[in-house]
Amino acid sequence: MIAPNMATMLAFITTDAAIDQPLLEVMLKKAVSLSFNCITVDGHTSTNDMVLVMASGAADNTPIKQNSPGFSALAQALEDLCRDLAFQIVKDGEGATRTMEVTVRGGATLDDARKAAFAIANSPLFKCALHGGDPNWGRIISAAGYSGAAMNPAKSRVVVGGVVIFDMGQPVRGVADKAGEQMRKDHVTIEVNMGAGQASFVAWGCDLSNEYVRINAEYHT
Amino acid sequence: MIAPNMATMLAFITTDAAIDQPLLEVMLKKAVSLSFNCITVDGHTSTNDMVLVMASGAADNTPIKQNSPGFSALAQALEDLCRDLAFQIVKDGEGATRTMEVTVRGGATLDDARKAAFAIANSPLFKCALHGGDPNWGRIISAAGYSGAAMNPAKSRVVVGGVVIFDMGQPVRGVADKAGEQMRKDHVTIEVNMGAGQASFVAWGCDLSNEYVRINAEYHT
Repeated sequence: MIAPNMATMLAFITTDAAIDQPLLEVMLKKAVSLSFNCITVDGHTSTNDMVLVMASGAADNTPIKQNSPGFSALAQALEDLCRDLAFQIVKDGEGATRTMEVTVRGGATLDDARKAAFAIANSPLFKCALHGGDPNWGRIISAAGYSGAAMNPAKSRVVVGGVVIFDMGQPVRGVADKAGEQMRKDHVTIEVNMGAGQASFVAWGCDLSNEYVRINAEYHT
Repeated sequence: MIAPNMATMLAFITTDAAIDQPLLEVMLKKAVSLSFNCITVDGHTSTNDMVLVMASGAADNTPIKQNSPGFSALAQALEDLCRDLAFQIVKDGEGATRTMEVTVRGGATLDDARKAAFAIANSPLFKCALHGGDPNWGRIISAAGYSGAAMNPAKSRVVVGGVVIFDMGQPVRGVADKAGEQMRKDHVTIEVNMGAGQASFVAWGCDLSNEYVRINAEYHT
């Protein structure tokens, strides 16, 4: 996971809810797995990322337990907050001009879906295609393929911004203009079906621009 | 392994030596593992790479056997040729202005050494530092660390063009100018010791430049 430039991401979350520490930790772990651990700017993992949550109990509520009414409300609020913060990191990626949400479905396992989603979101070739606004299915499919995740090419499918550009292992003709429009939006959604199972994973990333290179090559001069 | 642009690398090698097919195949596999499989331009594996070797036997030599005099000479020639061709691919990488040779030593296993070497050679952050000519040990060490390979930070070491910039887990002071000179050469050698064993691996890569982004983002317009 990437925190641009300073190679460090520190997140401090506070709540006035009364809740036991072990339960809050379970809640936070789930929220982080669905947010901060779903983002990438360049695949270069930072050395010291941290997400902390502190509960003061000042709300004077009946302490939240696993099945108490407040549990799902707080869990949802924590998840929403973490997603919002994580997405802001991607949006703020060095030189990012566009963000992407890569949803991989049909993975044989959750780990497979995760691997494929990050391979796409981290591929320098696809990140350049995103920068150029081109719905390059070849770069998406080949990244999913080399990720090591199980894939059934004959059942694979790629959808960009709701436009199916690759289906049953074949490119779809006549959709280049519509798909190109979708690829040139500020936020682009990409769905890939691996045709290998039921698992899914969502990763967030950004494009690779000249500005990324400038920031990370010329910082010293 | 990357073949720039066309997403395909096809290598055809011919020899007039008389040699049995199974033995030539063993020879080629070793040569490829030390050459074509050691290079990366952007980590985006191509879908259809191929290396073929054909032996006509026109040299009329006594057919080469495992222990015959011609064996090591032909094996060495094949290895040299494959290295030369593989290095040319890296040099010809999209927008490459500098090449790098990353030697990882002290790996717990060969696979660990390989993982660490490719993590460094593929890190967009380090590739940008190479482009900018900055001996950024933090980007090297963190890439080796996130590769998943076993590492003993207290024994780790980084050498750029013969200049030790990081040793026993600490940056070396007063070498920035000398190391910077080395980083601005056309071909930069980087040595990393993982302090975790005896295995080593050499990977070849290139820098990440604005021109890489231009070529891979604007090909469509």
